[in-house]
Amino acid sequence: MADTGTKAQIGVTGLAVMGRNLARNLARHGHTVALHNRTATRTRALVEEFGHEGTFLPSDDPAAFVASLERPRRVVIMVKAGMSTDAVIDEFAPLLEAGDMIIDGGNAHFEDTRRREAALRERGLHFVGTGISGGEEGALNGPSIMPGGSPEAYAALGPLLEDIAAKADDGTPCCTHIGADGAGHFVKMVHNGIEYADMQLIGEAYDLLRQVAGYRPAEIAEIFRTWNTGRLDSYLIEITAEVLAHTDAATGRPFVDVVADSAGQKGTGRWTVQTALDLGVPVSGIAEAVFARSVSGHTGLRQAAGGLPGPQRATLGAEDARHFADQVEQALYASKVVSYAQGWNMIDAAAGEYGWTIDPGAVAAIWRGGCIIRAAFLDRIRAAFDTDPKLPTLLADSEFAGEIGAAQRDWRTVVGTAVAYGVPTPGFSAALAYYDALRAERLPAALTQGQRDYFGAHTYRRVDREGSFHTLWGGDRSEVAG
Amino acid sequence: MADTGTKAQIGVTGLAVMGRNLARNLARHGHTVALHNRTATRTRALVEEFGHEGTFLPSDDPAAFVASLERPRRVVIMVKAGMSTDAVIDEFAPLLEAGDMIIDGGNAHFEDTRRREAALRERGLHFVGTGISGGEEGALNGPSIMPGGSPEAYAALGPLLEDIAAKADDGTPCCTHIGADGAGHFVKMVHNGIEYADMQLIGEAYDLLRQVAGYRPAEIAEIFRTWNTGRLDSYLIEITAEVLAHTDAATGRPFVDVVADSAGQKGTGRWTVQTALDLGVPVSGIAEAVFARSVSGHTGLRQAAGGLPGPQRATLGAEDARHFADQVEQALYASKVVSYAQGWNMIDAAAGEYGWTIDPGAVAAIWRGGCIIRAAFLDRIRAAFDTDPKLPTLLADSEFAGEIGAAQRDWRTVVGTAVAYGVPTPGFSAALAYYDALRAERLPAALTQGQRDYFGAHTYRRVDREGSFHTLWGGDRSEVAG
Repeated sequence: MADTGTKAQIGVTGLAVMGRNLARNLARHGHTVALHNRTATRTRALVEEFGHEGTFLPSDDPAAFVASLERPRRVVIMVKAGMSTDAVIDEFAPLLEAGDMIIDGGNAHFEDTRRREAALRERGLHFVGTGISGGEEGALNGPSIMPGGSPEAYAALGPLLEDIAAKADDGTPCCTHIGADGAGHFVKMVHNGIEYADMQLIGEAYDLLRQVAGYRPAEIAEIFRTWNTGRLDSYLIEITAEVLAHTDAATGRPFVDVVADSAGQKGTGRWTVQTALDLGVPVSGIAEAVFARSVSGHTGLRQAAGGLPGPQRATLGAEDARHFADQVEQALYASKVVSYAQGWNMIDAAAGEYGWTIDPGAVAAIWRGGCIIRAAFLDRIRAAFDTDPKLPTLLADSEFAGEIGAAQRDWRTVVGTAVAYGVPTPGFSAALAYYDALRAERLPAALTQGQRDYFGAHTYRRVDREGSFHTLWGGDRSEVAG
Repeated sequence: MADTGTKAQIGVTGLAVMGRNLARNLARHGHTVALHNRTATRTRALVEEFGHEGTFLPSDDPAAFVASLERPRRVVIMVKAGMSTDAVIDEFAPLLEAGDMIIDGGNAHFEDTRRREAALRERGLHFVGTGISGGEEGALNGPSIMPGGSPEAYAALGPLLEDIAAKADDGTPCCTHIGADGAGHFVKMVHNGIEYADMQLIGEAYDLLRQVAGYRPAEIAEIFRTWNTGRLDSYLIEITAEVLAHTDAATGRPFVDVVADSAGQKGTGRWTVQTALDLGVPVSGIAEAVFARSVSGHTGLRQAAGGLPGPQRATLGAEDARHFADQVEQALYASKVVSYAQGWNMIDAAAGEYGWTIDPGAVAAIWRGGCIIRAAFLDRIRAAFDTDPKLPTLLADSEFAGEIGAAQRDWRTVVGTAVAYGVPTPGFSAALAYYDALRAERLPAALTQGQRDYFGAHTYRRVDREGSFHTLWGGDRSEVAG
């Protein structure tokens, strides 16, 4: 640990599993990696176990760690998002010099990242809030990386990150500079929201194949495998087939039947919806996914409501079941397009709100590998935005519009069937309602405005002339300027 | 304005329309009301125009205003929620003495109210964040009043508020002490969220009667008038009929057809959903209502999606239309019960989170008059909670359960028809999906947990034994303790 003259290109502090794997990934790519952890045993364990994978410069104290870095210093902090992040920043920032950078690879809220970036910029330091998706496995073998911060910081950091990022099928690194300050963590949050929606939609498809078509989990696994060879080809569809095909060794029952049906969540789906509400962007697919997880966990509520009546219907015959499975694929695909469309609307709205310049196609491109929602599908989203970077919604892209146009009849049949059978499909239903609302010539919002004017004099606009108006509801009901 | 020895029982500072009307309401009930406004012209205008309604003690400066109040002083601040509230508090608090109270009658966020209450409590002052519903009209003639704060403060303030509050049909004042600190503003926020949901559901019912049944607005007004004589009897149904029956004088067209179909919102619906997400309570009905307003306002998005294909279906014949209208009433009622159930779940969760003791039946009771969602229906919610104050969900109350059991078939038909016709009914659909999820024996959340364990080692619980487990998905797929 003495200064041997060798300096590290990058340092990682916080060596729990994500930090450790990221450090190993960097070392395996030939970079010299400085290491630090609050408890030194973890640092030593990493070097002992994985020291052969590359060149590590471990330090027990922050000053030595910082001294072991070449300039501009690149300090990656990999700690639990929240107050620990601030504590670590406060520890390291005073040891750094102008032009050095702190990279936060945790799951920070983008508002915290904006605050931290502004504070460190004042001190002449770069702060790069970086979304990293792909879990432990991705951190080690290639994650999808979403760095925010300044273009100058990215110039000095990007090549290293692109080096260790996942590579899409065409060889492109799954890493790009997303935009200023919190843009990287924002986009990571949207990724997670979309992940929630994807998982919910898959769950609904499974539930329908089970309850309506009467398929067993192993049969449904086969259906998902088939889907995975088509336009739904994706990591989540692939692992769904694996999970559904798995048999519980202890009982011999399908694994999915022995797992408690109460879904956990770590909070980023919630953040996504809360932020979308602030931005005024409807993200009903993600919201219903978050609510569905909540419902599943409310055991008391479910017990209390368990006896409520629903329809009793026989499952479909073999031929109808096969046909229904095809229709479910259509519904799943169309609903998925809607939730991605909503996610990109959110990115666009945030770019406007926070002054970020975000290339929507590039975001799709770096999600093609490394992350949980990686999918062939994302290449088509990239193409849609490459064709028209100002596309107001994915649904208006001619390719997606054509597919949804072809799918919408089956989509309606599936939602109608779910409703008739009493199978909850909040995600499919919300996506279809959103589709129908967007394409509606007139919405009942006109009535809403009339009501608001009636009880609160909130005024309304007219379809036939400019201005704001109020009807004297309590008087002679004439109209006045509002 | 010299000290004549007469003191006021209560004072109002902030004399825009809400403050003015509240002051008049107090004066009309025989209370001497101190008045103050930042610009004195408003104070003088009130006295000149309405001085004959009661006894007002106007003051031009805060110190004189405070001096004109009997002790404990009751200072009602009626300013735009936000930083103005803090500014006014900072102005008046130093003039008050221990035991005096500040009542915030604005639309504050309950978290701000909690912060302010704690800060003033430290200084020996009471702070009573008070939700006031009913708009200008209610403030003058009797609003629904939702005060938080301490029981001591309520003891000194409650009688005045109960005096000026609306009275339910049985004569009970629509005012009760909700709970400590921010409980009043919290409950007011939930009220507004439910109001959003109610309005959205009414909009969907109208849209279906128009697009599917083919009724004209005037005919739909008659249907709503009929509904208003039954279990849906409520202020919002009543004014819906008024709005739909109204003809635009300028064009001779139905009023609802000349109003721009882009709904506004002031933000409390959004707060409700964001808070529910923090509390882990699904409020899909309110969320879809907020999203529906957002969708309606996204003109660019709607234009871009305007050409997307949907079904083309003929409207129903006269007999089918009449039958369908009855089914829509069932769907509207059942969906309404769901959104109220979700609202009360939210109140219950918040009471647990913030340590409030809230009587759920009393909340229903004070919404029976004065506020926008006032309805006969609320008396039945009160009765349900009076029967069982620990009721986990309104849906489990035997009366509501019976009604929804009887309604669910028609509810399904209506949602299925909406989907088939391409009429967006996000509220009806979300409510039905929630109902079906709550009563489901098994939810696909088990699959979600399997996926989460697969990609993130998040572990799962089992249905057949205690503990937390993980499957070695990347290995031999054996199960280990998680």
